[in-house]
Amino acid sequence: MSRIAVIITDYFEDSEYTEPARAFAAAGHEIVHVGTEAGKTVNGKKENTPVVIDVAVSDASGDDYDALLIPGGFSPDILRGDEAPVKFARHFMEAGKPVFAICHGPQLLISADALRGRKATGYKSITVDMKNAGADFSDEEVVTDGNLVTSRHPGDLPAFIRSAMQLIQ
Amino acid sequence: MSRIAVIITDYFEDSEYTEPARAFAAAGHEIVHVGTEAGKTVNGKKENTPVVIDVAVSDASGDDYDALLIPGGFSPDILRGDEAPVKFARHFMEAGKPVFAICHGPQLLISADALRGRKATGYKSITVDMKNAGADFSDEEVVTDGNLVTSRHPGDLPAFIRSAMQLIQ
Repeated sequence: MSRIAVIITDYFEDSEYTEPARAFAAAGHEIVHVGTEAGKTVNGKKENTPVVIDVAVSDASGDDYDALLIPGGFSPDILRGDEAPVKFARHFMEAGKPVFAICHGPQLLISADALRGRKATGYKSITVDMKNAGADFSDEEVVTDGNLVTSRHPGDLPAFIRSAMQLIQ
Repeated sequence: MSRIAVIITDYFEDSEYTEPARAFAAAGHEIVHVGTEAGKTVNGKKENTPVVIDVAVSDASGDDYDALLIPGGFSPDILRGDEAPVKFARHFMEAGKPVFAICHGPQLLISADALRGRKATGYKSITVDMKNAGADFSDEEVVTDGNLVTSRHPGDLPAFIRSAMQLIQ
């Protein structure tokens, strides 16, 4: 079973957290919510879904986790305004551990300069940023490139979850 | 007096609309709110400030306006998910008309591929995207490069408004 970090803050796209987290938990994996402040409740953009942060990203070590989920919405853009979440995400990419990023999730990977030469997809508004960051962008429901699984939007969640599950044990 | 288009949608950073708009109107300029749908009310991110859209961007012609204001928040990222707002912003940059972009406002200019070789600033989270899009980025309260005035965040509003006012008559 894997220990999966979810890096998340306010304005996340609700279903892009709830659906993968539910599927991972149902398969027996452990979910740890990593955010700005331990004990703080953050909320989704559309349905206000509450998520309690388990570990502050400034105290978190990537070594303690097997995989990383980056839900979309405006959460990734808020997170990447600070260095700690960017450094945390970079650990997984450099270590070759599974990283699952959907919608605006790849923004955190752009800031980590971790998309150069990587096959990926993402939300339509950030396509230009992903390409400018060196990603080999495809407009597909899911793109898997080694450790990296990316999708465009909530409509892609079934394919995203299916592909993610293939990378964790 | 100038006719200034404000391109805006939901989740805009309230003060980055209200303060420049108030200053422009007080100086006798006309403000026209351009957005996704004419007659629709959009709301700010923090204070829920209501703004009624005067003209749908799909019906708007850049030729009808002398300058463009792009308030920040998450509004610019939502707008650039469609082609019409990107094309509208591109008109002002190509025509050399004054463009005032603050915080996340430059995201619309990235999608218009209008920052290449231009001196500019913007919100910290999009610094990497602006640099990758070819901007000559500076971490300053306001950067003026020809027709383009950019600032980083609400704290820069006095300098932003002062510099913008110098470009409109």
